[in-house]
Amino acid sequence: MFNNNDYMLGNKTAKYLYHRYCENLPIIDYHCHVSPREICEDTEFENITQVWLYHDHYKWRIMRACGVDERYITGNATDYEKFLKYAEALEMAIGNPVYIWSHMELEKYFGVKEPLNPRTADSIWHKCNAIIRDEHLSARKIIRDSDVELICTTDDPCDDLRWHREIEQDRDFHTRVIPTWRPDRFLNIENNQFSDAVKELEGVSGKEINSYNDFIHALQERMRFFNSNGTCIADHGIDTVPFRKISNEEVNTIFKKRLRGQPVNGEEAEAYKTQLLISLAESYNEFDWAMQIHYGCERNVNTRMYRKLGPDTGYDVILDENNGRKLTALLDQIEQTSKLPRIILYSLNPADDALIDSIIGAFQNGTTGTLMQHGSAWWFNDNKVGIEHMLDSLAARGVLGEFIGMLTDSRSFLSYTRHDYFRRLLCNRVGKWVEDGSYPYDEESLKEIVVGISYSNAKKYFGFEGGATVGS
Amino acid sequence: MFNNNDYMLGNKTAKYLYHRYCENLPIIDYHCHVSPREICEDTEFENITQVWLYHDHYKWRIMRACGVDERYITGNATDYEKFLKYAEALEMAIGNPVYIWSHMELEKYFGVKEPLNPRTADSIWHKCNAIIRDEHLSARKIIRDSDVELICTTDDPCDDLRWHREIEQDRDFHTRVIPTWRPDRFLNIENNQFSDAVKELEGVSGKEINSYNDFIHALQERMRFFNSNGTCIADHGIDTVPFRKISNEEVNTIFKKRLRGQPVNGEEAEAYKTQLLISLAESYNEFDWAMQIHYGCERNVNTRMYRKLGPDTGYDVILDENNGRKLTALLDQIEQTSKLPRIILYSLNPADDALIDSIIGAFQNGTTGTLMQHGSAWWFNDNKVGIEHMLDSLAARGVLGEFIGMLTDSRSFLSYTRHDYFRRLLCNRVGKWVEDGSYPYDEESLKEIVVGISYSNAKKYFGFEGGATVGS
Amino acid sequence: MFNNNDYMLGNKTAKYLYHRYCENLPIIDYHCHVSPREICEDTEFENITQVWLYHDHYKWRIMRACGVDERYITGNATDYEKFLKYAEALEMAIGNPVYIWSHMELEKYFGVKEPLNPRTADSIWHKCNAIIRDEHLSARKIIRDSDVELICTTDDPCDDLRWHREIEQDRDFHTRVIPTWRPDRFLNIENNQFSDAVKELEGVSGKEINSYNDFIHALQERMRFFNSNGTCIADHGIDTVPFRKISNEEVNTIFKKRLRGQPVNGEEAEAYKTQLLISLAESYNEFDWAMQIHYGCERNVNTRMYRKLGPDTGYDVILDENNGRKLTALLDQIEQTSKLPRIILYSLNPADDALIDSIIGAFQNGTTGTLMQHGSAWWFNDNKVGIEHMLDSLAARGVLGEFIGMLTDSRSFLSYTRHDYFRRLLCNRVGKWVEDGSYPYDEESLKEIVVGISYSNAKKYFGFEGGATVGS
Repeated sequence: MFNNNDYMLGNKTAKYLYHRYCENLPIIDYHCHVSPREICEDTEFENITQVWLYHDHYKWRIMRACGVDERYITGNATDYEKFLKYAEALEMAIGNPVYIWSHMELEKYFGVKEPLNPRTADSIWHKCNAIIRDEHLSARKIIRDSDVELICTTDDPCDDLRWHREIEQDRDFHTRVIPTWRPDRFLNIENNQFSDAVKELEGVSGKEINSYNDFIHALQERMRFFNSNGTCIADHGIDTVPFRKISNEEVNTIFKKRLRGQPVNGEEAEAYKTQLLISLAESYNEFDWAMQIHYGCERNVNTRMYRKLGPDTGYDVILDENNGRKLTALLDQIEQTSKLPRIILYSLNPADDALIDSIIGAFQNGTTGTLMQHGSAWWFNDNKVGIEHMLDSLAARGVLGEFIGMLTDSRSFLSYTRHDYFRRLLCNRVGKWVEDGSYPYDEESLKEIVVGISYSNAKKYFGFEGGATVGS
Repeated sequence: MFNNNDYMLGNKTAKYLYHRYCENLPIIDYHCHVSPREICEDTEFENITQVWLYHDHYKWRIMRACGVDERYITGNATDYEKFLKYAEALEMAIGNPVYIWSHMELEKYFGVKEPLNPRTADSIWHKCNAIIRDEHLSARKIIRDSDVELICTTDDPCDDLRWHREIEQDRDFHTRVIPTWRPDRFLNIENNQFSDAVKELEGVSGKEINSYNDFIHALQERMRFFNSNGTCIADHGIDTVPFRKISNEEVNTIFKKRLRGQPVNGEEAEAYKTQLLISLAESYNEFDWAMQIHYGCERNVNTRMYRKLGPDTGYDVILDENNGRKLTALLDQIEQTSKLPRIILYSLNPADDALIDSIIGAFQNGTTGTLMQHGSAWWFNDNKVGIEHMLDSLAARGVLGEFIGMLTDSRSFLSYTRHDYFRRLLCNRVGKWVEDGSYPYDEESLKEIVVGISYSNAKKYFGFEGGATVGS
Repeated sequence: MFNNNDYMLGNKTAKYLYHRYCENLPIIDYHCHVSPREICEDTEFENITQVWLYHDHYKWRIMRACGVDERYITGNATDYEKFLKYAEALEMAIGNPVYIWSHMELEKYFGVKEPLNPRTADSIWHKCNAIIRDEHLSARKIIRDSDVELICTTDDPCDDLRWHREIEQDRDFHTRVIPTWRPDRFLNIENNQFSDAVKELEGVSGKEINSYNDFIHALQERMRFFNSNGTCIADHGIDTVPFRKISNEEVNTIFKKRLRGQPVNGEEAEAYKTQLLISLAESYNEFDWAMQIHYGCERNVNTRMYRKLGPDTGYDVILDENNGRKLTALLDQIEQTSKLPRIILYSLNPADDALIDSIIGAFQNGTTGTLMQHGSAWWFNDNKVGIEHMLDSLAARGVLGEFIGMLTDSRSFLSYTRHDYFRRLLCNRVGKWVEDGSYPYDEESLKEIVVGISYSNAKKYFGFEGGATVGS
């Protein structure tokens, strides 16, 4: 980037492995938040602010940390003013991944090679906008230019998946776009919207829901529908890992009570969530889906800004609770009552890395490949220190060569460069082990490791290889 | 130090930035524990042990860890014997910042260039003492030689601040010495001395205190007094972050009960502390003061030694509690009930770094510059690994270029070299980002970043720029 | 290893210190789990799988993480098949210490210099087995070839120590093999086997046990027996540090109740454990034994596999609980009620490193050398990142030069290479401090530091120097 194309590659082996094997691999983006509708409709953009700064709370936080007025972030300043403010703030963000991502994006999609700062902002603004206009930069164009082979979006169980089906039927677009099952609102029994969610589920599933069992059947009905649309991954976002085991009858009582609009207390909610996670895990195992669990995040901590801007606007934080005992108890329970599905664990707290690596090692009971995975460094850890900490920990306590690697987790179509960022850090790490004598320079083994983690392990782990099972 | 003046500067950019921009900047020491009286009276010393080993529990811990008898640490051995024992112990403390600080201090203030160890101790003893005697080494001489522009001491709300005023009036001494408001004993309602503290406050404020409201008014009276003496920073030392919200009336009941000498339970104490922190934060906002919160420290854990030596003698430790939820709830509450003052968060537990960086990013609602800061690596983290961990985390999750940088936190006048230690680590870090291609070599931007963090950001953040607002 | 004998030594000073001073030092292995019977009987092996893969759950976890069927790990596949599966899995374990240990072991004991992978496995299998057969590789031969001066095994208080005595009497074997006192089952009062354990203790001690006092006397009787067999170290494995202080009478009541077969609740168990640890610490102080405390581990989390394979089979994990307050309270209590014995603290959670380093510094009240130690990076941290994290933390917050260094903690006779691995990392670290100017290049000091940590500090700390105190 800044001087040449070897940035972040600190040794000869790293450079060789990256350029020879990883740089040009296609992208499997098995977890993100882009809009299938925007892909389907092939949304175009008017200027760089629209495609780059709208919806990107990573960039908003950079501006807020510099004391930029909210008017220039989510308010009614012009797109040009917002771009200038961002340029000012970004200059101070040395060491932040957003600094590097921003410049990777400017270079890859807009051919901009100079650093963005208040002195260069105006000329970059015009250059980018010319490309947006002249080359008709659009969702699909970006995806194609990024060589994305497969995208898993994040979808509600009640979603009709029409955009996914339309994309699937389009013979001109070769990237597969697969829905991911994300049933969070059915887990959050304490929320005011819970019984409405269940009613909506009743509607779309066509199954009457009068009991916990009915509820599970309705969810399974939707899972069948998702499955027939190619889904092979579920995702759960929970703040703290629940574990409180009670009988199915008691769970049914709690569920029915809540459906009638009565409140549930903390213990009841925890027991319900425990059982629902177990029930769902059993179903995922039957459908041969992988189960993602994201925990350790406290959301919307700034009430005033939440009221003003809603969720996913940059007001979420790392949570520091002790989830170890409950996490092992939950996994053990699933292991005992059913066959464990493939599970991927992510914590937002980097202090959990070692814990997670020790836990996945204790539930690898599979006979057909790796069962448990430590998910890629998430969100506040999706940066050099976070990724290296995670890679080091997984390597030291597990088997790095089996790791399924990177995902963007992004709302922005320009984020595919994050895979490039990750691959550089990965090759840099591997190169260091080779150069300090911890691993032999054996090109066959090294290629299998870096290509596996950058690309092929995810394909194999999720079963993306057989295109035939997709759609129907 | 040991071979040349480039120690701890691991790359060319680091060396250039440090020597060109940072080495000779003045020092803003916005948090320390030196005695304003000793500055005012310009205390002199008889020998190196007095100025160097008396009162410095960092150095005591080095000796204790080597099994040195307490007689040579805080006991009645001679100053010469104490110095020899320290020389013996220090030799084993490779990798400890005290090893480097000690040698920086010996070099800067005494011209000693050889390592201190049992073979060199006697000659260094004589050399240092000659300088102490011949050059009349004193508090002010050290401060002047260290180019300290401004010092914030740590002061009790009942303090009469006479030493600060005397220093202010002395036209021959150009370093500003400003009191910091530290009301810990008014927060610790469970302590036996609490009602005595309130009585003392009643006396100095001239306000009768019969209710929580009276109490706040009396504190505000003292804040006005501090403010007129230049104060613009408050500091709080708490072990665990409190959050339990009850009505003002209930707080008043608890406060009055305690004033009558009745005990309060843990929940009552937590509710009281929560409310007091909120009330004080509101006042700080009105006075435009910044609020420091230090948490995650358990003090005086060794009862026998506490009884023998009292507090601040080297028997405090890192605490590993989960403060995340309460910290965000407290900040959110302040945000909602009043305008948030500028707040600086310090945890003694380095495992909290990522958490704090995510939290400050969620409360940056300012319109006039950065509001929330992650405080400089504190105490057991004021060392290479601690500082680098903090810088890496803040850079990766926030905007490093806005960081207000270093403070000594010290009881010793010889500690100003810690700013030098920090600036070296900072330039080293910045240099690495430049040399690995993560940030461009743009001298204008880099200068702004390293000079800002080393010196000017603190001036701007605390409003130290306008000398006119000080005194009155 | 992979290119030459300088692997993991990243700078000139490191290479010099390692090869000149550390490489050929004898080994003091003051904590391990090898079988004294196997040493005594000088067990031989039939093939590499028997000596290398049987009983080694570190290697089993590598295979499980790659999805290898349990049949090839602990099941009834042939030894050859197991070896092949291990070779396949190991290739993927880049960055795992087991990768390096495996190759160090292959090189040191079998002369194998090429990397083990599926292409080389067959020839390595034959080469190793030839050496096992031709050179009569046995427990004692390995110990002798590894230059092991002293081994502390791990032993139950009821053990008759006959193997230790037989080894001691054998004039042809010069390695001292000393029992370590590990009374875990007498601490775990909630276990079903507790009263049986007490009955067994009654039998071997010849003391009737009707009260907590009787129980302590019986344990002390066994401690005298262990002491006369050379024991000078105790070890405790606890998941969470207990602290709940009640009167001795109440402890007696809980103990007697449990002896009668009645259950105890969590609070009672915690109070009992607290008191027993205090009582034992007092005794250790009298016997002049050192006390190891291992905490932060949750064991046997996978119920199905525990039922199938039993304990110590690779299903233990890191625990993330907050032990700080209880740990300081327990140490403070021991400090107050008796003289503190030498104590070594190990946590399985690397996030505790800083905490432990701050705590040991607060209880260094000894007058005859260092009292408290931070134990060597344990188990899931016995790897490059874990060891460096621990060394960095101890150095930054304590006195590294007093550290007692490495132990194998292993069930395998081939693990002595772990000392070599550790010494390389140690010299590498020390070399970095010298080369970045943080410590002078003073050969006398550096030699004392690296030889001390690699070998002589442990001898001094545990009092292994006087051979005369051993045996009767």
